[in-house]
Amino acid sequence: MRAAVLDAALAALLEHGYDGMNVADIARTAGVAETTVYRRWATKADLAAAAIGELAVVENPLPDTGSLRGDLRALLAQIMALLRRPEVERLARAAVALAGDDPRRSEARTAFYRARTAGSATVAVRAIERGELPAGADAEAVIEYLVAPAYLRLLLTGGPLDEVLLDDSVDRTIAAFAR
Amino acid sequence: MRAAVLDAALAALLEHGYDGMNVADIARTAGVAETTVYRRWATKADLAAAAIGELAVVENPLPDTGSLRGDLRALLAQIMALLRRPEVERLARAAVALAGDDPRRSEARTAFYRARTAGSATVAVRAIERGELPAGADAEAVIEYLVAPAYLRLLLTGGPLDEVLLDDSVDRTIAAFAR
Repeated sequence: MRAAVLDAALAALLEHGYDGMNVADIARTAGVAETTVYRRWATKADLAAAAIGELAVVENPLPDTGSLRGDLRALLAQIMALLRRPEVERLARAAVALAGDDPRRSEARTAFYRARTAGSATVAVRAIERGELPAGADAEAVIEYLVAPAYLRLLLTGGPLDEVLLDDSVDRTIAAFAR
Repeated sequence: MRAAVLDAALAALLEHGYDGMNVADIARTAGVAETTVYRRWATKADLAAAAIGELAVVENPLPDTGSLRGDLRALLAQIMALLRRPEVERLARAAVALAGDDPRRSEARTAFYRARTAGSATVAVRAIERGELPAGADAEAVIEYLVAPAYLRLLLTGGPLDEVLLDDSVDRTIAAFAR
């Protein structure tokens, strides 16, 4: 039931955007009662956040190559491969378009980023333990700076998500944090 | 005439989004003939790009403080002050929502970023001339890396556009490029 509803919600979000997404239609497509949907997800925003989170969820295990460079490279390569999928790009744009005023909509918006990066700060924590990063390094910020240029290109500038960006982002992040 | 049309186009874009933006209505609001609008801007996408570019245009002169750190700090402070304005945030979301398939729509989308950062790579070029950055440093990439976390927070994660981000982004960009 959960998978059928989230699939239908994702399809609706991609086709109609958040404002045009209709819970009754989603329930019908998934073959369940609308009340069943609302028992599991209290609001449309909750459902949208869950659907976005489902697509962006980590399909690959967190890299553990033994070095910070290897881990950051594997992690960003996974994320860039995801962002290059046209349906993921559409979903990212739909997520960004959710206005910031309503906290529930903001939550649906950030779900896209969180689902893909949750837990990945672990690679920076391991690097601190190995002495590759200084003890006080901000593990969450390492991931934020690693991925930010790729998201900027995807969402705004249209620059390439290519091997050059991958190499440069890893090099620059290590130089920025390994001081 | 130009300012009146662009003001009306910007208001329409903010209120209705790109798809709901109507050139005939914009011409009426600006008090000009629709044909006059189309003589200046051949398509709706051209008009949207011009309107977005107008708002995001550099209101402050490019900083020239004599040091890379001073220039990057002043530049990012200007950009963050702009991005914190609610109407600019709405416009950035509207720009991102423009789908990537149609090149004219992509152009309107990137106008938002370009208008704000055009020419700013000059501060990195000056730093290369002063020997603060190595000769081969990629001046455009310096700006991209400087601003990317701020845009990521604005558009996706909702993280704060605050003094901590300003200081950290400047420090990390210098560390990443001044190797």
